[in-house]
Amino acid sequence: MKFAEMSKNELQSMQQQFQKEYEGYKALGLKLNMSRGKPAPEQLDLSMGIFDILGKNDYTAADGTDVRNYGVLDGLEEAKKLFAPIFDMDADNVIIGGSASLNLMFDTVARCMQNGALPGVTPWGKLDKVKFICLVPGYDRHFTICETFGIEMVSVPLLSDGPDMNMVEKLVAEDDAIKGMWCVPMYSNPTGITYSDSAVKRLAAMKTAADDFRIFWDNAYGVHHLDKNNRDYLANIYQECVAAGNSDRVYLFASTAKVTFAGGGISAMASSPANIAYTKKLMNAQTICFDKINQLRHVRFFDNTEGLYAHMEKHAAILKPKFEAVLKTLDEHLTQLDCAHWEKPKGGYFISVDTMDGCAKRVVALCKEAGVVLTGAGATFPYGKDPRDRNIRIAPSYPPVDELVTAMKLFCLCIKIASVEKLLA
Amino acid sequence: MKFAEMSKNELQSMQQQFQKEYEGYKALGLKLNMSRGKPAPEQLDLSMGIFDILGKNDYTAADGTDVRNYGVLDGLEEAKKLFAPIFDMDADNVIIGGSASLNLMFDTVARCMQNGALPGVTPWGKLDKVKFICLVPGYDRHFTICETFGIEMVSVPLLSDGPDMNMVEKLVAEDDAIKGMWCVPMYSNPTGITYSDSAVKRLAAMKTAADDFRIFWDNAYGVHHLDKNNRDYLANIYQECVAAGNSDRVYLFASTAKVTFAGGGISAMASSPANIAYTKKLMNAQTICFDKINQLRHVRFFDNTEGLYAHMEKHAAILKPKFEAVLKTLDEHLTQLDCAHWEKPKGGYFISVDTMDGCAKRVVALCKEAGVVLTGAGATFPYGKDPRDRNIRIAPSYPPVDELVTAMKLFCLCIKIASVEKLLA
Repeated sequence: MKFAEMSKNELQSMQQQFQKEYEGYKALGLKLNMSRGKPAPEQLDLSMGIFDILGKNDYTAADGTDVRNYGVLDGLEEAKKLFAPIFDMDADNVIIGGSASLNLMFDTVARCMQNGALPGVTPWGKLDKVKFICLVPGYDRHFTICETFGIEMVSVPLLSDGPDMNMVEKLVAEDDAIKGMWCVPMYSNPTGITYSDSAVKRLAAMKTAADDFRIFWDNAYGVHHLDKNNRDYLANIYQECVAAGNSDRVYLFASTAKVTFAGGGISAMASSPANIAYTKKLMNAQTICFDKINQLRHVRFFDNTEGLYAHMEKHAAILKPKFEAVLKTLDEHLTQLDCAHWEKPKGGYFISVDTMDGCAKRVVALCKEAGVVLTGAGATFPYGKDPRDRNIRIAPSYPPVDELVTAMKLFCLCIKIASVEKLLA
Repeated sequence: MKFAEMSKNELQSMQQQFQKEYEGYKALGLKLNMSRGKPAPEQLDLSMGIFDILGKNDYTAADGTDVRNYGVLDGLEEAKKLFAPIFDMDADNVIIGGSASLNLMFDTVARCMQNGALPGVTPWGKLDKVKFICLVPGYDRHFTICETFGIEMVSVPLLSDGPDMNMVEKLVAEDDAIKGMWCVPMYSNPTGITYSDSAVKRLAAMKTAADDFRIFWDNAYGVHHLDKNNRDYLANIYQECVAAGNSDRVYLFASTAKVTFAGGGISAMASSPANIAYTKKLMNAQTICFDKINQLRHVRFFDNTEGLYAHMEKHAAILKPKFEAVLKTLDEHLTQLDCAHWEKPKGGYFISVDTMDGCAKRVVALCKEAGVVLTGAGATFPYGKDPRDRNIRIAPSYPPVDELVTAMKLFCLCIKIASVEKLLA
């Protein structure tokens, strides 16, 4: 029976039962953390071969470059070739960065702010106001970048097949202060949905009031399928941008943070020849080169992109049971009561749960009190403010399955408690 | 006999002889490069133990952190402790970065431009004009950072014991647009001199019109002595700043680029508690963490800072003969003629030669024509313009000694040719 169909008496009686269950959980003294999308230790173990993959005489790239010395600002050719199929772009359009794609994104925004999106274009920092479209719920670190640069965030709902494109098209057509947009287009953080081909085409082709409008395409989970035989597919936004005459519109980002080591992998970006050329010119002021030894390690470890794809199946074998456990628990405990909504991602690192309006903070607080740390309610919205106070991001990757099930049962119980409180209020 | 004391006839006769010698060099078909301060392959070989230093079960930092996973924005505690004695500062005041200290410097300038030097302080980017004092000759990549941010460069001579402090003190006292200053205080790039204690004290204590004036203390060669028994010593600028009540004045930078691998090492910065706290707050928007695996590799390889110092003696054994060969060749070929001036560095990566005024470009061109590439004349000055066209930076580290001697003989010959041309003009 749905909560909404229950009488006040029924709800009150359930409330008592839930409270008793909750006290039971508190007595367990749980100490679990589902707050961040960190790989589990067993996932990190998959890449231990990287630690000593380079033999004592293996420090020379295909073009003769000694990877131990200075040089090659934009990365080894073979590292670019490793990422090129992931971006579905030419290796020439790829730059290899340090260990974090977040750093590449931050720097790309910084360059647009400081120097302008292209030579001769007004730096965004010289304008009175710069706005970015932020899809909600979304990735908190994208929002933090905006806050750091004083970029005003304009929230647009992320629907089950991508951005609310009617709203996006209207906003960018009307407001030339809107200079950018964050997208996690595949297995989106946090809802896990993948943009439809139609959404990608519309993003590429839409008319923008700002000539230097840029899409920051954070394809963090582009190879992170839970099951290669039941996966999503993402259209090639760069090709769509080229086809629409907007080839400079998109910067694409990826990394091996959740392929090899989180914080110890390699990152990459891709864009149009003009964007890449200007990025390299400005990057030249920032560094002589990134860590080519680590680039070579990754190249040797995977051989090629096929090797990387095969490696991802090992991750999937670890992650899939965790996602299934979370979804099963949610379904068993909440579906009948109809007090929450969630997507069923085919990849990525998150499951996102929408509670009844006004319940998310309460659920997170209840979980915390019983020893389960979740991502803070509101974190998936600009300025940390979820206007409906309903979205909670679940990160199932790190805890073992048994802990995950315990934590999720508590989570579901807390949703039930908060829902009944709300209905009785 | 000095060139200056020769008659026109004598000079003309020498010119013919020089020209003949020069043709001889051209016939050798040399292909040598002394343009950048790159470690030689034998130096890189010294650190090959790093490649496989981490065993399969060695991925845990002293505090239990799994270095393969996300976290620890400001670096492993043990990596901070490795750098703390190099900075002569508390480990708490140290941040560990990625592979390039240049990137840390760039980012620090960027933060001052975008967000201000401290919370509540006007970002430099909001001001009409920002100027930096640039010591000349100096490091071209510092100048490139200024250019990228539109920072006006004010040249001040670097003397044999440090900056021309009278000029520096006057400038910073009078002009509140002067917000910063680049320093390579030990074995300076390119002249190789080390700042005197008096210069360090005056930099720390001087009155500045700008409250948020900052010294960018690029101690790139702080452990790079050619002979530990005949080395320079540098005063602790941070202590001097604290003593003078200017504790937030200085950011210090260092890296293992020329200790382990150039581009594959680890970098570090140090500053006051207030500066470090604000830097971390803003860095949090930029990345989740830098590469802790590489930090742990370095810690394991050196054990501690003493181990690092011992390692530097191996570098010295390779570099010292090269510096000696360059200095000996310069002395043998040029001292008597009195047509050039150079310092005799006790460490670092460069020897800087001042020709007669108006000869540097010509010398570099002559060398290039005969197959020896030098750092471009003017590169050691802001905007690439050496007003007296006399400074040339020699980077002796990369070529083997025999090639170095050949290249230096040609270099001296080219100086002689250019000098005579000038005197006969």
